[in-house]
Amino acid sequence: MTVNITVLAGDYIGPEIMAAGLKVLAAVSEGQNFDYQLHEMPFGGAGIDQTGEPLPAETLQSAKQSDAVLLAAIGGPKWDGAPQTPEHGLLAIRKALNLFANIRPTEISPAMQKYSPIKNTEPVDFVIVRELTSGIYFGKPRETTADYALDTMRYTNEEIERITRVGFDMAMKRRKHVTLVDKANVLDTSKLWRKIVAQIATEYPEVTYDTSYVDAASMKIIASPSQFDVILTENLFGDILSDEAAQTTGSLGTIPSMSRGTDGPSLYEPIHGSAPDIAGKGIADPISMIRSVAMMLTHSFNRADLATEITDGINQTVAAGVVTPDLGGKATTDEMTKTIINHIKESR
Amino acid sequence: MTVNITVLAGDYIGPEIMAAGLKVLAAVSEGQNFDYQLHEMPFGGAGIDQTGEPLPAETLQSAKQSDAVLLAAIGGPKWDGAPQTPEHGLLAIRKALNLFANIRPTEISPAMQKYSPIKNTEPVDFVIVRELTSGIYFGKPRETTADYALDTMRYTNEEIERITRVGFDMAMKRRKHVTLVDKANVLDTSKLWRKIVAQIATEYPEVTYDTSYVDAASMKIIASPSQFDVILTENLFGDILSDEAAQTTGSLGTIPSMSRGTDGPSLYEPIHGSAPDIAGKGIADPISMIRSVAMMLTHSFNRADLATEITDGINQTVAAGVVTPDLGGKATTDEMTKTIINHIKESR
Ligand SMILES: CC(C)[C@H](C(=O)O)[C@@H](O)C(=O)O
Ligand SMILES: CC(C)[C@H](C(=O)O)[C@@H](O)C(=O)O
Repeated sequence: MTVNITVLAGDYIGPEIMAAGLKVLAAVSEGQNFDYQLHEMPFGGAGIDQTGEPLPAETLQSAKQSDAVLLAAIGGPKWDGAPQTPEHGLLAIRKALNLFANIRPTEISPAMQKYSPIKNTEPVDFVIVRELTSGIYFGKPRETTADYALDTMRYTNEEIERITRVGFDMAMKRRKHVTLVDKANVLDTSKLWRKIVAQIATEYPEVTYDTSYVDAASMKIIASPSQFDVILTENLFGDILSDEAAQTTGSLGTIPSMSRGTDGPSLYEPIHGSAPDIAGKGIADPISMIRSVAMMLTHSFNRADLATEITDGINQTVAAGVVTPDLGGKATTDEMTKTIINHIKESR
Repeated sequence: MTVNITVLAGDYIGPEIMAAGLKVLAAVSEGQNFDYQLHEMPFGGAGIDQTGEPLPAETLQSAKQSDAVLLAAIGGPKWDGAPQTPEHGLLAIRKALNLFANIRPTEISPAMQKYSPIKNTEPVDFVIVRELTSGIYFGKPRETTADYALDTMRYTNEEIERITRVGFDMAMKRRKHVTLVDKANVLDTSKLWRKIVAQIATEYPEVTYDTSYVDAASMKIIASPSQFDVILTENLFGDILSDEAAQTTGSLGTIPSMSRGTDGPSLYEPIHGSAPDIAGKGIADPISMIRSVAMMLTHSFNRADLATEITDGINQTVAAGVVTPDLGGKATTDEMTKTIINHIKESR
């Protein structure tokens, strides 16, 4: 059986790191009974340039017919102020593929501690489960008049239920603790989250859960991040907190993410942007993309064996100091990628 | 002339730190031609306990007739799930006094660096100017049905204009740089903020300004906080970012804030909560409250001379290691307060 993967390289460093990810995918799957076909499609700024649309119809169609989607990074100054921005494409593909659950790991291992901008020395290992297709990102009405503007944060019971199940299912495979982050002392939507999460929690007697206001959570991520296992939260809070959490690792360039729905393809992408400032220099950190490939192998294709080989290859490469400038090294994207591939091959 | 100050001690550690603040106020104003009358009123949980309301009518009336309001801290588990919470009182007094501008300083001086949970060693000195009486905290409609809930983030041009002027005026007295934090790649309200801030900025040719998405800002506060001078932002973003920023100082217990309108009394309060866990032990850090008193002297009563004496007294006390447990010391609230007062007296 051959699986189909839609490849969205996107903008600026996007194509550079995507190339790295695909090289590792090719190397790790060689002779491993994993056959795939790639469908490279325009998306984001590249979509606008080629078709006028950040999410061209044929790109969406390819994604829908695929078994998984790999995305590198989109956006940049070139399309600032355009009527349709690359970011619109990102929001549109999330909605069209019903990718309501966005999963972003934050890990600070003892080896990575030196890159972290925070002093905390306890190991940090939590996952943010962010609702991705509702809330204030998509709520109607949305209005701008001569005198005012408004956005609507809206959640249905059902939307909260399904993301809550994703969060608690994830906790069951981890340390069995969920923290709901909200602003229930102010927002009606947050009060609804509290009510529904409390109900769903009864289905998971093994999982403990607590709640934190979003302002307090933004402090805990810095002061005591080791307390978290799974953070469950709505779209906008998840946006802010997951970037904050990523920053505490000191290595944004290494963090992958997964976005999934109930069925249909999941989408895998680095959590960072397209880094226009370093594009074209060949020095972008490929780890986030390569780890996105590993996440895809595990979660979409049940090939945790291949994912582990990739992760081991990355760890050995970092331990050997073959790292790009964002991690204080001098390696190029290419050198790092080759070293990872060599480690994978040697270990066989 | 005698000025009137409404005193809202509030809940848990609230009365303990308020007592400290008032002792310092008494000491610093002795023989300095600064006469004041205090009006101690129930508020928050104490308001609920005494009158059933977190903001009793007579408390609001006293506040309106005063020249300034001092607030310590409110809330706590005792009133959780009550129909009217202490927090409702806080939102209500902000709205009733039209305190649309909330100003929160974040400073990490070389001496305080050791308390900071972040590794950054550059001096940090910025101010968050948070819109406080609009946005999703107060926007209508707000609805909960059997199937969904919704909140509305709404801003009028005028609301954005007046807070923007506060931000730029503040920048003029500082390093003349404003960063507008928004989510203009997603929200209509943020797009309106960008438009209006760009207009007002033309009135301040000496002030440079830039913009940052809120998710990126949450990273910069950790990774490169020295870049900020004035952060201008809407209510909810300001809530999250100001707590995050406060946490980077490692000493929440030391940070004051000011909330003001166009005329009428301003309100001064620590940025932290009522800390039920340490209430009654006499070990709460009084610095945030004492600095709130200093801010009041400067901004409501034009007595920067007295404020400077207080600040010097605090600095000397901290330098001598007479600090409460939150700063790693063994001093009680009382010992610290007395030491500050002694420094003030000795320096005269
Ligand atoms: C680009 C932007 C619309 C997007 C978001 O806010 O969701 C990004 O910040 C992210 O987190 O993937
Ligand atoms: C208590 C709460 C309603 C309040 C807010 O969100 O404004 C607090 O967090 C603050 O920042 O003063």
